[in-house]
Parts: sequence; structure tokens; C-alpha cells
Amino acid sequence: MRIGKTKCRQLRSLLESNQLEFLLEAHNGISAKLVEDAGFKGIWASGLSISAQWGVRDSNEASWTQVIETVEFMSDATTIPILLDGDTGYGNFNNVQRLVRKLEQRHIAGVCIEDKLFPKTNSFIKGTTQELADIEEFCGKIKAAKDIQYDDNFVVIARVEAFIAGLGLSEALKRAEAYHQAGADAILIHSARADANEILAFKHEWHNRCPVVIVPTKYYSTPTKVFRENDFSIVIWANHMLRASITAMQEAAKMLEKEESLVNLEKNIIPVSEVFRLQGVSELSKAENCYLPNNSD
Amino acid sequence: MRIGKTKCRQLRSLLESNQLEFLLEAHNGISAKLVEDAGFKGIWASGLSISAQWGVRDSNEASWTQVIETVEFMSDATTIPILLDGDTGYGNFNNVQRLVRKLEQRHIAGVCIEDKLFPKTNSFIKGTTQELADIEEFCGKIKAAKDIQYDDNFVVIARVEAFIAGLGLSEALKRAEAYHQAGADAILIHSARADANEILAFKHEWHNRCPVVIVPTKYYSTPTKVFRENDFSIVIWANHMLRASITAMQEAAKMLEKEESLVNLEKNIIPVSEVFRLQGVSELSKAENCYLPNNSD
Amino acid sequence: MRIGKTKCRQLRSLLESNQLEFLLEAHNGISAKLVEDAGFKGIWASGLSISAQWGVRDSNEASWTQVIETVEFMSDATTIPILLDGDTGYGNFNNVQRLVRKLEQRHIAGVCIEDKLFPKTNSFIKGTTQELADIEEFCGKIKAAKDIQYDDNFVVIARVEAFIAGLGLSEALKRAEAYHQAGADAILIHSARADANEILAFKHEWHNRCPVVIVPTKYYSTPTKVFRENDFSIVIWANHMLRASITAMQEAAKMLEKEESLVNLEKNIIPVSEVFRLQGVSELSKAENCYLPNNSD
Amino acid sequence: MRIGKTKCRQLRSLLESNQLEFLLEAHNGISAKLVEDAGFKGIWASGLSISAQWGVRDSNEASWTQVIETVEFMSDATTIPILLDGDTGYGNFNNVQRLVRKLEQRHIAGVCIEDKLFPKTNSFIKGTTQELADIEEFCGKIKAAKDIQYDDNFVVIARVEAFIAGLGLSEALKRAEAYHQAGADAILIHSARADANEILAFKHEWHNRCPVVIVPTKYYSTPTKVFRENDFSIVIWANHMLRASITAMQEAAKMLEKEESLVNLEKNIIPVSEVFRLQGVSELSKAENCYLPNNSD
Repeated sequence: MRIGKTKCRQLRSLLESNQLEFLLEAHNGISAKLVEDAGFKGIWASGLSISAQWGVRDSNEASWTQVIETVEFMSDATTIPILLDGDTGYGNFNNVQRLVRKLEQRHIAGVCIEDKLFPKTNSFIKGTTQELADIEEFCGKIKAAKDIQYDDNFVVIARVEAFIAGLGLSEALKRAEAYHQAGADAILIHSARADANEILAFKHEWHNRCPVVIVPTKYYSTPTKVFRENDFSIVIWANHMLRASITAMQEAAKMLEKEESLVNLEKNIIPVSEVFRLQGVSELSKAENCYLPNNSD
Repeated sequence: MRIGKTKCRQLRSLLESNQLEFLLEAHNGISAKLVEDAGFKGIWASGLSISAQWGVRDSNEASWTQVIETVEFMSDATTIPILLDGDTGYGNFNNVQRLVRKLEQRHIAGVCIEDKLFPKTNSFIKGTTQELADIEEFCGKIKAAKDIQYDDNFVVIARVEAFIAGLGLSEALKRAEAYHQAGADAILIHSARADANEILAFKHEWHNRCPVVIVPTKYYSTPTKVFRENDFSIVIWANHMLRASITAMQEAAKMLEKEESLVNLEKNIIPVSEVFRLQGVSELSKAENCYLPNNSD
Repeated sequence: MRIGKTKCRQLRSLLESNQLEFLLEAHNGISAKLVEDAGFKGIWASGLSISAQWGVRDSNEASWTQVIETVEFMSDATTIPILLDGDTGYGNFNNVQRLVRKLEQRHIAGVCIEDKLFPKTNSFIKGTTQELADIEEFCGKIKAAKDIQYDDNFVVIARVEAFIAGLGLSEALKRAEAYHQAGADAILIHSARADANEILAFKHEWHNRCPVVIVPTKYYSTPTKVFRENDFSIVIWANHMLRASITAMQEAAKMLEKEESLVNLEKNIIPVSEVFRLQGVSELSKAENCYLPNNSD
Repeated sequence: MRIGKTKCRQLRSLLESNQLEFLLEAHNGISAKLVEDAGFKGIWASGLSISAQWGVRDSNEASWTQVIETVEFMSDATTIPILLDGDTGYGNFNNVQRLVRKLEQRHIAGVCIEDKLFPKTNSFIKGTTQELADIEEFCGKIKAAKDIQYDDNFVVIARVEAFIAGLGLSEALKRAEAYHQAGADAILIHSARADANEILAFKHEWHNRCPVVIVPTKYYSTPTKVFRENDFSIVIWANHMLRASITAMQEAAKMLEKEESLVNLEKNIIPVSEVFRLQGVSELSKAENCYLPNNSD
């Protein structure tokens, strides 16, 4: 599978590049394609966003095979690598191994798993208890993932939720080191603070033992140059395509409900022909010329 | 299944009401929920939009069970009725019967099938040949659908593609009458013209033999009062949520790629908390209080 | 959904009948149909068997939606009630609620959940540790299931794994009582012993507080009259269709490999026409006469 | 994907070998594994059998993605190549291209498509009309399949249904030649006669222009040496695992219903431990030692 190989290599290159790289969230085939079209080099298949587009909660309400089906459409629609937000791995080490197998078959370039319990609770929900996984058990998941992957370049990222759980820097570092030793290709250090203090403190102590990935959803006002100067590897914009789409759809639906007419909306949205372009309608027309009988008579 | 019964009854009420009613397109759980939240009384599960969100073409590239899975999420996320754009029924009369069974189980209130051939070609793609189904064969599909439905209020709408195929009014009327006789609950008369001439001519001749549904994607500039004065039953805004979402996501992706910062986008999109609200996070918190052990000790 | 209502009522009747009733295992549509054809009044959709037919382990390797898809085929192929072996409920109380919703939509008459942890380990695997669920947490699952069901007759059975975990009678009774109080419609008391001592001891103490279901896979030599005399409600033959089918397929494959000829096998297996009968081919032929155009000219 | 590459190469080797080769039918993961365990070199994923195990008809009642899901389980459970009975390709050339993509991702080694119309009718149902595909249109499907495959060794076989449709040898030869020219790797010449006259006549005229595959379900009494002497490439035993399993399950269910006891059945079927062996339970136990925390303390 040349495609799969290339995508894994691309994601690894992003992780190992000397500059700050960016992944933008997508949650279905069309949003993935739009991320690629805008010039991004990689896609974050967000668990929150994929759940939300189905209308269910980010609490493993949809099954992991439904997630797989969605990322398969995303992968088929794009040529840049996809990193799946794999929640807690949907079970134990054995479920993680099955997950990796299924992801590689579908040309997904990597997976990020977090050290919480199944079923998961979104890290940004206030007032929730965020129970962490046993370190040794979570290391077993990472090892299991690394041992099962076919393609050496498939990426396994360990997401440290210590800060989310209200634990301090030393716990975060202890976990990161354990996951690194277990074989994780990178650490995603997560934080729900409005400033970057936690992730900067972590990075300061961690140095460059392995690449560090961040998700500045809450500390979005921190200038990007701060991330760059502190040698982070990848910034993930984790849910913004979903939020942009909801915003637009809310407005469109309200406008249509009120105006009972398409006239004003029509001016502000892409035409149907642009949908066709994104779907590849013209490529199909060419293929029809090639493979369908000539009915011109 | 009380929910299913209620939804079928609601859709039938819309069809039989004395006023012009509106369905707005949705293509996944979240867009369906937004349609309901805006005050709409029903949802059009568009084949084009559902295909497009997956990133595939509106040519039956995804399977009919994948469509079913999507509308199940849409139905679970909403309390208003959903009318599925069932393309050509995904095969012959037997496939249509299986489709109706699966839809009723998932509380979908009705299905619209069109008189073209499988696999279908979108009606708005220029330069395509739109071959129509044999009338008798298509009537068999309608009869088969009506005979298999459990709930008397489940709605089967026959979509007449005669104008799309470049055939004239008499062919449209002939087909509509045949489908009406075969048991269709309503006729969807489709047109790709920029004016409403075709559908008005049809309605003028058809009178009120049964409800008539229209999709003014191309003749959107026709004032809604024209539809009202001509006694149409339902107007379907067939792909506007998708197009609004793509427009917003294209802009968001381009802005993020260029600015390498979330700051400006953040102001213009809903917060994460609104995503949580739409997913029903607070309802789950209440349920956790009810069903999870009290760990406060 | 008349079918769904009827099936729930039928399963409840079996549970409440004055005589010993029997459920036979099935693992796909055809085995379910054969159980019905043989005269059984209900079907056990076994987690072990469904896993095994896919070729995966009984350790939640397949997803819960894949299980749902399988029982949907089973339900569509039969008119008798199906009781799903729902393992541990595939997660927490919230996952159980989603499960019940999906089951009712597909006309599954009831679900049995067991007090172990996700992902589960089959109860008959020697040398494994069988960790039990926290009682209060498991009661939350049962309450959640009962609270969410639409149809009053939908059945929720609590499976007590205390004996499997090597704990004694008092633990089994304590758990059964807690689950009964939480709303379980019946208790499935499980045992891996070759004799019926454990389940008889349990029944002796439990009396008839609620119906008791048993699975005599290991204590199969205990005469059925013993179960009858001790007022058990339902006996589940939990994996015998699968085992019979594997036995036959192993022999057939070996014979064909050795003989390189169909001649001897052909005599001992049903003809293709019997497969057609089971699939309902003649019903489709009738429907074709009804719904397809008459092409006799 | 090393596995996928190997399987394609293996299937191609069977097709090109100098001796008569055999494929045995399977319809789910466990039957596929049993075929491999018995020593077969390849598996026929039968459309009839896969439909029948679900309890639906061989008339494209289940969707093509449901078929894909099933063969994925079959492929995961085995190391020998699988040839999918792809019916008519589930639509037009475009659907065939999507099918090939999905099959290669799942390490399926080849697909056989037949020159009939969608939805298909099983070739052995008496009294049915078997309408054939337009030759040029079917050649377009074959070309489309060959053009899209990544792995050069992926196999596309064209199944000629001319004899099934009651047409004679010259039509069969004309179609076979057209499909061969279009790029088919082999011809499957099908016949519903109780003797081998049709397929022998075809082979006599065809010589060895490309490999010829046969399915002697109806002419099973023809000695295998006849196929060998006439230089056929592969014999497919197309539905015998399914039929053996149904036979055994029918008997088991009837016996249990009558005897209300497991005692007699138990002697004649494999033990539960053999199910565990086939599922790979011991491999999981080893993995648990490797990846789970050591709880022995």
C-alpha cells in the first residue's frame, strides 16, 4: 500500500522536523479535504469533533468501529497524513492492538492515546473527575501498539492528562518519561488552563527527550512564537473546523427559519458546483468516458 | 416505539397541513439538531449532502447501510421528523422494501425515491444524461414500499425527474399520475431551471390530486409567496446547511493556515461549551449523579 | 413496532411461565432461523459464539455496534424473542443505556449483563482472573437500563459471576439481591463447575425472589428434571449451535481436502435448494410477480 | 502491507500453477480459519453463503459494505488468500473501483465479478430469468478494476453466465474473449447442468488463452481427474461449508428440542476449549503476560 507508507512517513517527518508544524482538526471526509486544500500538512481526527458531528457525546458513545469508518472516509478523501485522537484506546492493550491494525489498513498515519479510563470524559468539561490510568497499564498499551505496527513510521503518541487531572508537574514528567521509555514516539502534554504555564513548565524540564505536541484550545491567546521558541514539535488546532461549521449552520438555519427564503443566504455560501468540485465530480465524468459504453449513437 | 409513531404522524401532518411547510437539509447528527433548534418542523436527509460530508460523490459510492447509519444518528439527535432522500431506492423493489423496514426501525418518518437508475447521478450536474426508470418498474417500487410499511403514517414520496431528463410537462404529469395511483403519498416535482416555470406548469395541471413537494435550489430567487399561492405542500431547502458549513470551514482553514494563530478565529466561532451543550453534556452529568456510585467520600 | 412489542412480551412470558423454558444459542441469521424452525421459543445471542463466528476472541475485540448489526440480522430472520448476551454492557451505565435503545429499535427482547469489567474475559477460560464489578456501579447499570427502556416488557437480566470469580455463595446472594433490588427482571447465576452444586445452593437460598436463569455448559450431565424440580425459570444452551457447526465444517473441510471430490460430502449435507428455502427465495419470487413489470410479452 | 502483498501473490500463483488447485468456500471468520486449518491454499468468499449466514437472500439484500466487513474478519483470521465472489460488482464501473480499493486495504487477494445485472439473482434458482450485462459495459468494469488496483498481483476474474442464461457456447466464448481482452486475469465459466458438458465444451474451444475456473456445485459427480485432464486452473467448492454447518445445526437444534438435554449432543461436538483454540485464546494469554501489569503481588 504505497499510500499508507507515504502518509506514515509524512507524519513522522512533521514530528521530526526542525520547525513548528500544525495539524488542523477534521471530523469527516469533507472537512479533511478542506484542511488539505488550505495547505495544511496533516489532519487531527478529533474524538470530540467526530462525536459531535454524530450528535453524541465525547464519552465513547459511538463505537470504535464507527470511528474507524469515519477516518476511513477522511483518509480516502485526502493525501496528507491523519493522526487519530484515539481516546484511551477503547479498552485495554488488546483493543489498542486491534485499533492499530485497523488504522494501518486504512492508511491512517498515527494514533494518540491518553492515560485516562474507558469510557472517557472530555478533558474540558468543568467539574468532572478525570481519573488517570495506572502508569504501568498504560505503558503496556503503548508497547502493544508499537509492537503490532507493520510500518516502522506509524506514529504512536502518548497523551499525558496529569495537568487535566489536577496533578502537578512532577506527575506529568513521571508519566511522560514512562511512556517515552515504553516506546511512545512523542508526548502530547495537555492543559486546560487559559495560559501556557503548565505546558511551558513541562517543556522546560522535558527538554527534547522526544517531540512534544500541544493543543492550545484553552491557551489560544498565547502567541505562536512562544511555542516555536520553546521547541514544541506540533501544534494541534483541535476542534475549530467543527466549531466554525456549527457557527455557520446555526446562523444559516436561523436565517432561513426567519426569512423563509434562500435569497440572502445564497449570496454568502459556496455554490452547488463547488460541492461537486470537492466531491470530484469531474474526475468521475472523465472515468465515464473511459469505462462506460459510448452511447453517442 | 412511541418516538417513531410520533415522528411519522408529524411528517404526515406537514404534508397535509393547509399552509406551506419547510424542511431544511441536514447531513449528520449535529446539523440535524441545529435544524431542529432553529425551529424547523422537519429535516431533509439529503443524499447529496450526506455523500459530500463523507467526501464521496452523490453516485451511490457509499452503501445504503452507511446512509442508514447516518440517519440513525440524525434521528437519535432530534425529535422532529426526518424525510430521507432515498435516491432510486438503492436497487429494485426488494431493496426498497428492506430500506423501509430499516428506516422505520430507526424512527425515520418517510422516504423519497426518484425515478432514475441505480447508481444515480445528481440531477444538477451539467452535461450528464439522466436516464429515467421504466414507469411500471418504478410504480412497483412505490407499491412495495407502501405494502411493507408498519406505520400507516410512514410517508413515501415519488420524485419525478422528467424535467431533469429534458422531457416535457406531459411526461412529468403521466409519471406523477402513475406514481400517485401506485400509492405515493406525495409527488416531488424536480427542476433544474433558474425559474419556477416548470414546477408551476406542473402544479397548474396537477391541481391537488395529492401534495406536491419542491426543491428550489436552482430557482431560489422565486419568492416564497409564489409557492404559497400555488398551493405547494412542502418546500425543501436541500443542501444549504452543508454549503454554509463548507463555506465557513474553507474560510477558517485558510485563515489558520495564513495566520498560524487561533486568536482571530476564536472570536467568530462558538465556544467549546456550546459544542458540549449541543451534545447534551449536562444531561449526562445529571445521569452520572443518578447512576454512578457516590465517590464523594 | 408491533413486532418488537410482541417479542418482548414473548420473552417475558417465558420468564414468568410456570414451566422450565429453554433458549438455544444462535450467532447469525441462519442459526437463529434454525433455532426457531426446530421449535424453540427463544434465542440466546451468545457473546462467545458471535465473537467466534467472526474469528475473534470473546474479549470485546469486535465492537458493540458490530454485535448490534449481527443481532439485527438475527431478529430480522426470526419471529421468536432474542435475549442478547450483552457482556458487561460494553462500558458504563451510559453505554448500557445506548445499548438498550439500539436493541429495542431492532426488536431484541432483552439483554443480559454480567458483573465483570470491560473488556471482558470469557468465564470458562482456565487460569484467568475474573475481576468483578463494584456492586453499586453494576446496580447503576441495571437501573439505567430499566429507566431507559420504552417497552415495559423489555427484559434486563443480571448475570452474577461470583462463583466464576471463586467467591462463595454469600457473595453470590448478596450480589443477586442487590441487582434484584436495582430492578433486574431475573438473575442468571453462572457456574463453571462440572456439577450443579453451586447453582442449586444458590437457588435453595434464593427461593423465588425473582426468576433464575442458568447456563449448564459445564454441568450438562445434570438431568434436566433437576432444574425443573428446583424451579429454575430458563435453561440456556449457550454455544451448541456454534460447536455443532464447527464440528461439521472441520470434518467437511478435511474430507474435501483429502478426497478432492464432492461426491461423498454431497450425500451428507442439505441441498442448495434447502439453503434457498431458508433464505426465503420463494417469497421473493412471489413478490417479483407482484411488483416487477410483467415481461412475459 | 506485507500481508496483503503476500496474499495477492499466493492467489496469482494458484491461478498460474501447473496443477489443478482448489478453493473452499467460507462465509465468516471461523469458517475461513477452518478452511485454512484443513490445508487448503485459498478461500472462496461466497456471495450465496455470506448472504445465507445473515439469513438474507443472495439478491444484494445486504449492502456491499456489509460484505466488506465480513471478508475483513475472514482475512484477519487467516493467512491464505481470499477470492471474493463480488456478484456483479454492486453497481457500475465506479462501484467496482471502490470495491477493489476497499478489498486491497483489507488484504483480499482478488475478486470475481459476473456479467449479470444488479441486484443479482442466484444462478441456481430454477425458473428465474437471468439477464446478462451488456458486453461492452461489463468490459468497462473489468478495465476499471484492473486500472485501479495497486498491487499488480491482485486478481480480477470475469464470470461468464452465458450458459446460466440459456445461451450457447458461442455466446460464452464471445464474452470470455471480450473479458480476456479487457484484462481479466481468468475466466470463471459457470454452468448449472448436472454434467460437465458445457464447461468441457467451453474449455475445448478456449484452450489456454487464460486460466479457467469452475464451480462444480451441480456437476459434482464429474470425477476431479476430468477437470485435471482438461487443464482447468482452479476448482471452487462454493457453498459446502455453509451447507455442512446448516445440516449439523438443524440436527443439533432438533435433537435438543426433543431431548431437552445436552448429554447426547455433547459427545458429538467439539468442546468449548476447541472454540477457544480457534479464537486464539492462548495467544492472548501470552500477550497479557507481556503487556498487562504484573498483579501477582
